[in-house]
Amino acid sequence: MKFIQPRTLKEIASLIDCEYVGDSSFEVLGMNEFHVVTAGDIVFVDHPKYYDKALSSKATVVLINKKVDCPEGKALLISDDPFRDFNILTTHFKPFQASSKAISESAKIGKGTIIQPNCFIGNNVVIGQNSLIHANVSIFDDTIIGDNVVIQSGTVLGGNAFYYKKRPEGYDQLLSSGRVVIKNDVHIGASCTIDRGVTGDTTIGAGSKLDNLIQVGHDTIIGKKCLIASQSGIAGCCILEDEVTIWGQVGTNSGITIGAKAIILGQTGVTKSVEGGKTYFGTPIEESRAKLKELALLRKLPAIIKDLKENES
Amino acid sequence: MKFIQPRTLKEIASLIDCEYVGDSSFEVLGMNEFHVVTAGDIVFVDHPKYYDKALSSKATVVLINKKVDCPEGKALLISDDPFRDFNILTTHFKPFQASSKAISESAKIGKGTIIQPNCFIGNNVVIGQNSLIHANVSIFDDTIIGDNVVIQSGTVLGGNAFYYKKRPEGYDQLLSSGRVVIKNDVHIGASCTIDRGVTGDTTIGAGSKLDNLIQVGHDTIIGKKCLIASQSGIAGCCILEDEVTIWGQVGTNSGITIGAKAIILGQTGVTKSVEGGKTYFGTPIEESRAKLKELALLRKLPAIIKDLKENES
Amino acid sequence: MKFIQPRTLKEIASLIDCEYVGDSSFEVLGMNEFHVVTAGDIVFVDHPKYYDKALSSKATVVLINKKVDCPEGKALLISDDPFRDFNILTTHFKPFQASSKAISESAKIGKGTIIQPNCFIGNNVVIGQNSLIHANVSIFDDTIIGDNVVIQSGTVLGGNAFYYKKRPEGYDQLLSSGRVVIKNDVHIGASCTIDRGVTGDTTIGAGSKLDNLIQVGHDTIIGKKCLIASQSGIAGCCILEDEVTIWGQVGTNSGITIGAKAIILGQTGVTKSVEGGKTYFGTPIEESRAKLKELALLRKLPAIIKDLKENES
Repeated sequence: MKFIQPRTLKEIASLIDCEYVGDSSFEVLGMNEFHVVTAGDIVFVDHPKYYDKALSSKATVVLINKKVDCPEGKALLISDDPFRDFNILTTHFKPFQASSKAISESAKIGKGTIIQPNCFIGNNVVIGQNSLIHANVSIFDDTIIGDNVVIQSGTVLGGNAFYYKKRPEGYDQLLSSGRVVIKNDVHIGASCTIDRGVTGDTTIGAGSKLDNLIQVGHDTIIGKKCLIASQSGIAGCCILEDEVTIWGQVGTNSGITIGAKAIILGQTGVTKSVEGGKTYFGTPIEESRAKLKELALLRKLPAIIKDLKENES
Repeated sequence: MKFIQPRTLKEIASLIDCEYVGDSSFEVLGMNEFHVVTAGDIVFVDHPKYYDKALSSKATVVLINKKVDCPEGKALLISDDPFRDFNILTTHFKPFQASSKAISESAKIGKGTIIQPNCFIGNNVVIGQNSLIHANVSIFDDTIIGDNVVIQSGTVLGGNAFYYKKRPEGYDQLLSSGRVVIKNDVHIGASCTIDRGVTGDTTIGAGSKLDNLIQVGHDTIIGKKCLIASQSGIAGCCILEDEVTIWGQVGTNSGITIGAKAIILGQTGVTKSVEGGKTYFGTPIEESRAKLKELALLRKLPAIIKDLKENES
Repeated sequence: MKFIQPRTLKEIASLIDCEYVGDSSFEVLGMNEFHVVTAGDIVFVDHPKYYDKALSSKATVVLINKKVDCPEGKALLISDDPFRDFNILTTHFKPFQASSKAISESAKIGKGTIIQPNCFIGNNVVIGQNSLIHANVSIFDDTIIGDNVVIQSGTVLGGNAFYYKKRPEGYDQLLSSGRVVIKNDVHIGASCTIDRGVTGDTTIGAGSKLDNLIQVGHDTIIGKKCLIASQSGIAGCCILEDEVTIWGQVGTNSGITIGAKAIILGQTGVTKSVEGGKTYFGTPIEESRAKLKELALLRKLPAIIKDLKENES
């Protein structure tokens, strides 16, 4: 997320009531997570394991829970609880806005686009031309939808990321300020749920087609011309390269990459990243040929073991 | 799909600007897919592998991409792209009609039937008597619903079929002109998605009960008194005979048949057709007794192998 | 379910036109299922297998299909079809009430709570303070929601239990009169379906967080601070103790208990109750370490068998 106008380090520090290291007029342009930070962004880090990653990232402002040496050209915000303070900033710069109307007046809807009855379209949503939004679809604030897109009924675009920090008193949610971006010629089936990015975008690439009841987690990037069958779930922070085909009821771990033109057979659990151009099956995931051989062997195993035992005696 | 009134071969040919073989006044009554064609229908075929099937089907008009010999009593429409032209005809004879009202004035709703708030009911929908449609249900154009039916909230009846042709420039969707037909005494849970047939009907047989979050693909026919538990997905073009029981999170391949009174245990992948009266489990599907034996053997395998190795030495 | 005011045995018997054993003025306070009965409740039983359980339960009125000896201090209602008569009583004391408005006038909504557009909120719903109900959510009659709760779009709270008795003429549904109870600080994702209890409550404990497209069956009790990932299905009558973590696409059998702090890995089928504090995987469920070892062995099996055979010869 970028701020509407640049802020200073001092302003940000005062919002979260914390010390800072750097010039008080150091320019702050936005706030983001590791994978999408650019110069001017705040990134937060609250575990020593990730200090180096944060300090050497493209972010120029690091919200951190230890007074470390500040890298040249950067600034630090020193907080006892960076997670909490990142949420305070999200709430400040991107407060939840209740909608008094089902279709927000700030939504921009392109020529030739049809919105069927009972849809919810939040603030600042942009929809391109000749798209079709079927009845009872919910499109949250800031979602961007291209041209010739079809969204079938019941689908929800832009729900909050399922991202929690465990604290002694309970789960604390990282607030979402990101967006959902649906490119041109995408079809999304009925009752799908596409979560917004935490600070960045969850993106469905041009020409991809999703069937019904599909989950796409926060910050996931689906490439062009992917095909995803019903009831599959793509976790958060995944990358599907172009022309990936996913059959029904597949699930993935978060953060994995599926290479271009890979085919994932039904009910597979994508437990790790897999390279493109191959066909996979099973949980944990394997190349389908190997997995199917294993399962065939398993079926023959009673006979094989009987045989081995007889030969022994 | 049948046309509202009979058309001539010449009229159809002019709509898609193609050559034809046969009498220009040859009567054309509708357009359908292989599995539901009857005399007077157009069927399309664009791969030599299926030419014979199309030409010998009950369809009397074959939309085809080669000038073959025309079977006696039939007619041909010669097109460089039958898939595209079939879509042109669907758009002509069954254009998408945007709805200005949440409940279409052309919908017919039987005596004693209750429609709860925020439902969408499309054009030409027919609902029988004493049915109950809960809040936020979406029922697309042409859906037929019987008597004593209960549809729980969030369910979508009549979404487009997930049916695409891969072209160099991207996926091209076969447009849907078919319907969803829900027979008497059916219960459908919350947030289910039942897709319409491409040209024919997706049917849920009398007395069948579906739990929540279930997917039923296009043109699938579910028999009478079937029971389907939550989160199962029945792919397109499947047949479930009467009194089939499906436990939770089952998935099926498209085009399979499940015999009457079969029981499919939870999380099974129905990878092929199975005969009735038996209990099945696993992916790929097997009879449950065999599969459970295999899994039990797998658990004992470390000990068995250790034993075999010791006996060798 | 408790009745609004106490009834007498005679009144109840006349509603279902049956014989009774006990004082005609015997006080009847409500009707419930085994697992939630208390003194004054009617419980029904129609199979000899469960007679003792019913007669010795805390229920003081037993609706039964045989004239057995009446336990001291209790009463009997003698019916040829207790299931049917239990439904008659449910319909009498808790008739379905159609809603003329999307938000019922009898709903009580706490201070600071936001209801986004296109929601359905049924009769007698109570929502606490500072909660957020996103667009297109359906909340059925009698649902109780606490403070600081977030329900994302498309979710359905309070659908009927998927509970049927097989009769020669078809499936007969046990009518639901129970509720959904969502405690404080619960988050529920988009397009989830939480069914009401048959007579009791389906409960989501304080601080639990549910992702999208999750099914929770009737009468299930989810403890405090549980975390459930997308597309998981918790069947009816289950107990999840506190701080259980469930990854994506997990399913459970009905009636099972998952012990506190257990972790269930993705796509697992919880086929039986499991104790807390451990990590589980696979269908049928096993401790994950054991299961992953089995799967590793399966991958090495071709080499092992080859080796064994060679050593033999």
